[in-house]
Amino acid sequence: MKSQGNFLNFLKNLNLCSYLLVCRCSGVYNNFILHDIEIEHRRQKAVTEGTETMELTHINLQGHARMVDISSKPDTQRYGIASATIHMQPETFQMIMSGQAKKGDVLAVAQVAGIMAAKKTSDIIPMCHPLLLTGTDIEFRPDEKNSSIQIIVTVKTTGKTGIEMEALHAASAAALTIYDMCKAVDRGMVITDLCLLEKDGGKSGHYIRK
Amino acid sequence: MKSQGNFLNFLKNLNLCSYLLVCRCSGVYNNFILHDIEIEHRRQKAVTEGTETMELTHINLQGHARMVDISSKPDTQRYGIASATIHMQPETFQMIMSGQAKKGDVLAVAQVAGIMAAKKTSDIIPMCHPLLLTGTDIEFRPDEKNSSIQIIVTVKTTGKTGIEMEALHAASAAALTIYDMCKAVDRGMVITDLCLLEKDGGKSGHYIRK
Amino acid sequence: MKSQGNFLNFLKNLNLCSYLLVCRCSGVYNNFILHDIEIEHRRQKAVTEGTETMELTHINLQGHARMVDISSKPDTQRYGIASATIHMQPETFQMIMSGQAKKGDVLAVAQVAGIMAAKKTSDIIPMCHPLLLTGTDIEFRPDEKNSSIQIIVTVKTTGKTGIEMEALHAASAAALTIYDMCKAVDRGMVITDLCLLEKDGGKSGHYIRK
Amino acid sequence: MKSQGNFLNFLKNLNLCSYLLVCRCSGVYNNFILHDIEIEHRRQKAVTEGTETMELTHINLQGHARMVDISSKPDTQRYGIASATIHMQPETFQMIMSGQAKKGDVLAVAQVAGIMAAKKTSDIIPMCHPLLLTGTDIEFRPDEKNSSIQIIVTVKTTGKTGIEMEALHAASAAALTIYDMCKAVDRGMVITDLCLLEKDGGKSGHYIRK
Amino acid sequence: MKSQGNFLNFLKNLNLCSYLLVCRCSGVYNNFILHDIEIEHRRQKAVTEGTETMELTHINLQGHARMVDISSKPDTQRYGIASATIHMQPETFQMIMSGQAKKGDVLAVAQVAGIMAAKKTSDIIPMCHPLLLTGTDIEFRPDEKNSSIQIIVTVKTTGKTGIEMEALHAASAAALTIYDMCKAVDRGMVITDLCLLEKDGGKSGHYIRK
Amino acid sequence: MKSQGNFLNFLKNLNLCSYLLVCRCSGVYNNFILHDIEIEHRRQKAVTEGTETMELTHINLQGHARMVDISSKPDTQRYGIASATIHMQPETFQMIMSGQAKKGDVLAVAQVAGIMAAKKTSDIIPMCHPLLLTGTDIEFRPDEKNSSIQIIVTVKTTGKTGIEMEALHAASAAALTIYDMCKAVDRGMVITDLCLLEKDGGKSGHYIRK
Repeated sequence: MKSQGNFLNFLKNLNLCSYLLVCRCSGVYNNFILHDIEIEHRRQKAVTEGTETMELTHINLQGHARMVDISSKPDTQRYGIASATIHMQPETFQMIMSGQAKKGDVLAVAQVAGIMAAKKTSDIIPMCHPLLLTGTDIEFRPDEKNSSIQIIVTVKTTGKTGIEMEALHAASAAALTIYDMCKAVDRGMVITDLCLLEKDGGKSGHYIRK
Repeated sequence: MKSQGNFLNFLKNLNLCSYLLVCRCSGVYNNFILHDIEIEHRRQKAVTEGTETMELTHINLQGHARMVDISSKPDTQRYGIASATIHMQPETFQMIMSGQAKKGDVLAVAQVAGIMAAKKTSDIIPMCHPLLLTGTDIEFRPDEKNSSIQIIVTVKTTGKTGIEMEALHAASAAALTIYDMCKAVDRGMVITDLCLLEKDGGKSGHYIRK
Repeated sequence: MKSQGNFLNFLKNLNLCSYLLVCRCSGVYNNFILHDIEIEHRRQKAVTEGTETMELTHINLQGHARMVDISSKPDTQRYGIASATIHMQPETFQMIMSGQAKKGDVLAVAQVAGIMAAKKTSDIIPMCHPLLLTGTDIEFRPDEKNSSIQIIVTVKTTGKTGIEMEALHAASAAALTIYDMCKAVDRGMVITDLCLLEKDGGKSGHYIRK
Repeated sequence: MKSQGNFLNFLKNLNLCSYLLVCRCSGVYNNFILHDIEIEHRRQKAVTEGTETMELTHINLQGHARMVDISSKPDTQRYGIASATIHMQPETFQMIMSGQAKKGDVLAVAQVAGIMAAKKTSDIIPMCHPLLLTGTDIEFRPDEKNSSIQIIVTVKTTGKTGIEMEALHAASAAALTIYDMCKAVDRGMVITDLCLLEKDGGKSGHYIRK
Repeated sequence: MKSQGNFLNFLKNLNLCSYLLVCRCSGVYNNFILHDIEIEHRRQKAVTEGTETMELTHINLQGHARMVDISSKPDTQRYGIASATIHMQPETFQMIMSGQAKKGDVLAVAQVAGIMAAKKTSDIIPMCHPLLLTGTDIEFRPDEKNSSIQIIVTVKTTGKTGIEMEALHAASAAALTIYDMCKAVDRGMVITDLCLLEKDGGKSGHYIRK
Repeated sequence: MKSQGNFLNFLKNLNLCSYLLVCRCSGVYNNFILHDIEIEHRRQKAVTEGTETMELTHINLQGHARMVDISSKPDTQRYGIASATIHMQPETFQMIMSGQAKKGDVLAVAQVAGIMAAKKTSDIIPMCHPLLLTGTDIEFRPDEKNSSIQIIVTVKTTGKTGIEMEALHAASAAALTIYDMCKAVDRGMVITDLCLLEKDGGKSGHYIRK
């Protein structure tokens, strides 16, 4: 009976919206749901004790990968900004930037590629939750001195989890599209500094790259 | 009549397999096929004259993007090797590499992600031709000193065009999957040196990064 | 006028959130919306009269397939648990379970396959609504005595309709992935007992397999 | 200081839910978010001044394509109805409509094709937001006199933006499927009048084709 | 024994490459392969007797849909050219064509959409065979007098079946993308004349629209 | 020098078409290709020594998953036949089979689902090679006595590897579609006996289930 009480306290401490849901369960399959609660419990305990910093939330109790349970998180407005830079030969840079039509086209195709790739992120990144993007924009910053182009992607959503991956995947896809369209003349192009610049929304709050 | 002869010579010079095909055409829509031949002709002329180095083969006569015509190329065996490196905090590196199960899982998921992403490359990169991959393998090279992991992807095909993009997209997807699975503890990870290491097969022959 | 009144009563009885929406409609295309209401009306009438048990909700008035209208359903927390079992030769079972690395890999790949397949369910099952999964986990239960492995998938969402199909499709994909990776040594493997174990959430409530 | 005040007024005038979100931002990356606000500001100003009618909302400040930001829009119930008509030889029409089984199959396959295509619209139309469809139905209206079949698609959702594109893409896919299944006997079939018939829900309100 | 001889003659008459393959079969499942041969036999007989013109090759013996068996067809070079026309308000036409950047972008996005859609045709059209496109190009022909834009798509492949559907799907997707990007200012746009202009390659030979 | 000779013999023994290809390689990245050869070598040695029966070809030297290298295999005609059986309540069976329209539709949708799923197999099964299907057909065998329906799928291709997975995935998708369309009235349906019935073509030859 004590354990029963402990269990109820445990559930209350978790502030789970799914409390009633769980209580209605019975029979042999309940342990799968309780199993999820146990994982969440360990994680929250680690937060309280300050040992959470290094836990991989994508790993289940048996050490296998899982798609993290975000069912009880509220929907909040979120955005993410990521960047990548592609380095090339000066002649390749001139070719992309000079000719009116040509410039338009290489970067215009990369822009479309990035925007479409953002929508396909959860198809490509296995543990990534599907999300409804509410906006995506891409800016290209050419750097003639270094013969490079920086790609900056902003994505937005209203949902239960962040969209860092969507921004990063879009930046990567836009950079790879530039590579694809110019590789016949410059196979040695390199993509660097694919990283998150800023994000906000959700429990983990505001992050800005230093 | 001279122009007719010139046209036939022009076609012969192109060594097009599609020669007879074109000759059977007639009527108002032929110009679309002739238009493609004209693009190919300009490209080949540029090769002969040594001015081709800087032409973007993905751009059509009007300066718009197109999927390059590879119809008359033979099927050849090809491979491509690409790489990306992800840099992280030493604690993140330890977390991935130490625990038996955990190590298995972060890298095992990244491996699957990369292999599946290779198959979806032409869905993500707009001007990329669809290809039948005949093999894909991924190797992870952990570098404890620099707290980084290098991802090396080898892809193979028998087809009419190269598979550089498949190797690059797979390397990017594997690196982004590592990011996704560890971002809760290390949002500042950076992916660098996404580039082609080596490729062979096809008219442009063997390329090896210096 | 009586029919007008009947129509309004009919709408009120349906407790449709879309009441005002419908009233603003006019002109020749309204019948499509009214058509949907008629289908819903027949279904609800059947429920009241106890004749609904055997109606196929995926069939429209003309006997064609449709994606059932769930517009007026509230978003609720839901989960589904499905299972499949794959039977194999004892040698195949040993091969999967014994070797450290090998074990890790066959099941690790099957785990990723199942999680990714859950996200693609509405691409594969024609009348299935798209859903935003909020969590997915997979457990493998090896049974050495019977040379079989049971796959149990738990999926969660907050939405207007159930996720039985996502759980079932994930269980099937995980089992087929085990088949794919071992078929070179055991082509006769069989997958059985692909079925729903438990689900909760939504109007139809809690279901648990007996 | 005046500009600070103007900026706050500007934000208030926009009635942005994301007001607090923006104020928490700081540092070099903020301009991406402010950039989005500027685009929205210009658009709203144009509405007020009556000059908006002709603005393309899919174009960003630099003239590139973007996925329009709908983050601050409320979720509302929406529907869209689109149509397409396919014209064919009288013999083809008879073949589709006469034979019991055959009729069933050509139109049954087209029905499934349309419903599945509605779910893939944001994969095909680059700037289209992903949406969770809550219902899809298709009606075929054969017209023996003109040897044509009209396809009418109704789609529904609860979301932040309209579903005209889903209805149009489904109508196109259903018509193309009829073409595909009959092209061996009638290559000259033509699809016409692919257009929106009606839509409702959201800020732009009710539209009905005249 | 006569029937055995007839069967062998029948197989020889079909000139099936799969002759030996079939002969090696035995046991209960053979009838599925023989069933396919029977379908092909009926079709070829109909060709000989001149009654084939109106047969739907996508329908199997039971009247259900099937993906037509093209296994014994040779790979040949093929192309297809399809067209669609989108009609709009004069103001919409001016908006697309005038502004440098804007023009570039609406049509550039439509171009990318069409090229990517061509690659996804067999995902959208149920009975369509997957094909490896070897080239895709799109031309836009603006018609100021009629406030319309004609889209002409050329696709090429080397394969066992035609690519009419790829050309048609690409034309439809490009036209719908123009609609999507301008619908905020002109919801009444109509797409007409979606049809095949020309195709060549394969047994059915050259087709040109009159 | 001896080792050089051994290496050449080793390559010759492998009868690799890629012999010359490999010889042209040089520098640091060659080991990736040699690595593939080593894997193939071990496999062939195991075949010779009769120890291969139990090797998992999807596992690389480090114990990670890979997409098996089939580059040097010839293209051959292949087919695969798989089956699944779905068991239901007698009332559900009657509902599917009795009503003309209804029967047509549940099974017609399942047929389309199976055919489309066959084309998406390499998207769902991670280590599965992409293939160009040349034909797909599905037969339903209702069994009134046991209230079950058997689904038999035949798929064909000309390629370098087998299509067992395509047949199995299609059978699973067709069965799950029946479940989806009837689950409102019979949530307890079970799918059993998902297995390969027969396959032919390729090095491993003819397989027929006993």
